[in-house]
Amino acid sequence: MKIKGKHYRSVRFDYTHSVLRILDQTVLPFSVTWLSITQFAEVCKAISTMQVRGAPAIGAVAAYGIVLAVKENIALEQASKLLKATRPTAVNLAWAVDRMLLKLSAASNEQLYKIACDEAAFICEEDIAACSAIGDIGVEVIKKMANQKPHQAINILTHCNAGWLATVDWGTALAPIYKAQQQGIDVHVWVDETRPRNQGALLTCFELTEQGIPHTLITDNAGGFLMQQGKVDLCIVGSDRAAANGDVCNKIGTYLKALAAYANDVPFYVALPCSTIDWSLDSGKDIPIEYRSEDEVLHCLTSSHEQLAEYRPISLVGERALNPAFDITPAAYVTGLITEKGLFSANEASLLSLKKSLFNA
Amino acid sequence: MKIKGKHYRSVRFDYTHSVLRILDQTVLPFSVTWLSITQFAEVCKAISTMQVRGAPAIGAVAAYGIVLAVKENIALEQASKLLKATRPTAVNLAWAVDRMLLKLSAASNEQLYKIACDEAAFICEEDIAACSAIGDIGVEVIKKMANQKPHQAINILTHCNAGWLATVDWGTALAPIYKAQQQGIDVHVWVDETRPRNQGALLTCFELTEQGIPHTLITDNAGGFLMQQGKVDLCIVGSDRAAANGDVCNKIGTYLKALAAYANDVPFYVALPCSTIDWSLDSGKDIPIEYRSEDEVLHCLTSSHEQLAEYRPISLVGERALNPAFDITPAAYVTGLITEKGLFSANEASLLSLKKSLFNA
Repeated sequence: MKIKGKHYRSVRFDYTHSVLRILDQTVLPFSVTWLSITQFAEVCKAISTMQVRGAPAIGAVAAYGIVLAVKENIALEQASKLLKATRPTAVNLAWAVDRMLLKLSAASNEQLYKIACDEAAFICEEDIAACSAIGDIGVEVIKKMANQKPHQAINILTHCNAGWLATVDWGTALAPIYKAQQQGIDVHVWVDETRPRNQGALLTCFELTEQGIPHTLITDNAGGFLMQQGKVDLCIVGSDRAAANGDVCNKIGTYLKALAAYANDVPFYVALPCSTIDWSLDSGKDIPIEYRSEDEVLHCLTSSHEQLAEYRPISLVGERALNPAFDITPAAYVTGLITEKGLFSANEASLLSLKKSLFNA
Repeated sequence: MKIKGKHYRSVRFDYTHSVLRILDQTVLPFSVTWLSITQFAEVCKAISTMQVRGAPAIGAVAAYGIVLAVKENIALEQASKLLKATRPTAVNLAWAVDRMLLKLSAASNEQLYKIACDEAAFICEEDIAACSAIGDIGVEVIKKMANQKPHQAINILTHCNAGWLATVDWGTALAPIYKAQQQGIDVHVWVDETRPRNQGALLTCFELTEQGIPHTLITDNAGGFLMQQGKVDLCIVGSDRAAANGDVCNKIGTYLKALAAYANDVPFYVALPCSTIDWSLDSGKDIPIEYRSEDEVLHCLTSSHEQLAEYRPISLVGERALNPAFDITPAAYVTGLITEKGLFSANEASLLSLKKSLFNA
């Protein structure tokens, strides 16, 4: 998608010089800074500090982590362990690393770097195609609503950032919104701030502004009220990991919005590539939830008068906080899963049909 | 309650010099600043800018607004209109102003100031007694839980600030917690940050720290997850206005916590003095919801290295926000209403019995 009218992918790689370029998402939107990463250890740091975040984007960057590990002659089993340890919840991370290692297991030493680069690039291309397909499938949901509500904007609530910054391009939850814009459907997005790291206020607002899509920032507290008032036509969120029964793990606070959507008959969709589904888990209860530093809760990213990003304390020194980074939305609250393979119900039977189509293909 | 070990009331009045003293809640806890208010217009400003907030505290301060209006020879009908216009949702504001005007309607001119002072002081004393009684009644709920769960802390989640700063003393939602501490019951409080104005992170954490009560700050997004995990034994919140059917209006985000409590079988109590019940409203749908400036959402109160309070932007210039300040929790999600007159169910029949006892007494 675009920044100042120019198209970018969130993950780029210079094959000749072995340089990975990613946007530093810890300073966006106050500063648009492209990081140039040349070492494996920097990849681990970029993921753990959330310079890159979003399940699909983490997967793509982890793939390039393996590329750099090859370049540096780091044992791949070791590199795999280190990468997987950076963040525990997003399953795309392990998925991409395992896929890289499988591909490389058959490669000769002199071919390793090229094959690693090709596979990482392929993961990126696949991600873009998947997200674009998610957009095409999701936009049909929006279009149906628009037909029932002519001459009025469709109000879509989203939580956190599941846009192009969280993937390689297009995004997951935002892809249907971008496609709606392309098709001339009138949409307006309620953007949950998404404390503690404010990915909504910072990243989603930034994306939507750059794409020219009407949107309004709200606190994480406000979405339930807006649904009570009939101001939300549907919710679309992303996911960091889904279980085989349709339970969905996503950014902390998603569950509260799903409860409110359910209570107010607002459709609640989760957009995710199939690589985000963890077929090994029968239920969301088994998804490991990352607890991050209390400092994230005790501080807030703000800008100074010069628009520079600065973390500032929001409470007195000495206060303690707990910072679970994700929650689980039980399948019962999910209207549908928008994947690149189609729209699926959030239940075991429906996902089994998806699984069969994926693995028998 | 206490600041640095010394007991204070949040609203004080110097009869001889006609000076109202309140804590400036827009800079707490980074600065403990007592405002000295001598003019009616300053009272209106203090309420509208939330230098004083919390339904019962607003009521008490509004009463002193009438006192200062008497002092300044402002027509009382005019003063009443101006005061009521400062904030639309908290019913205690109109309740206190109407009570003052009723009292003064029978007074001779030379008696006006003294009678006004006496009635305002009486409102404050009544509020303290009511909040203390709410504490006594609410602590029984906590005690019952503690008996069922020996040798473990009772984990109580609260939203916003309904402590002594929101009243004259004791608080509403926090009063049972303060009483629990006095009775040696082991409690731990999950404090919702409460964006956009962070009354949880700023005021509730400050109160609990000063009183030595164990607590942990969480984002507004985290409470549902903690309830899923069995980490919340009960919720207690305050209210800005309740309807005769038990619907409860409180700080934006309360509704989301009530939904999560209901879904996870966590008792959800609302603590409020009877003056917060608007008997003229059959349902919460009729409660006017205040929309405040978008600037509150677009900024966050932070501290600098010198611990001074400063509002800082949390998004790029040009972003727009919507800022509903309250939401309505339907009675069906409320386990009980803790009032100074006892514990009542959140339904019409139960509240009718309360109403009868109040107005036939």
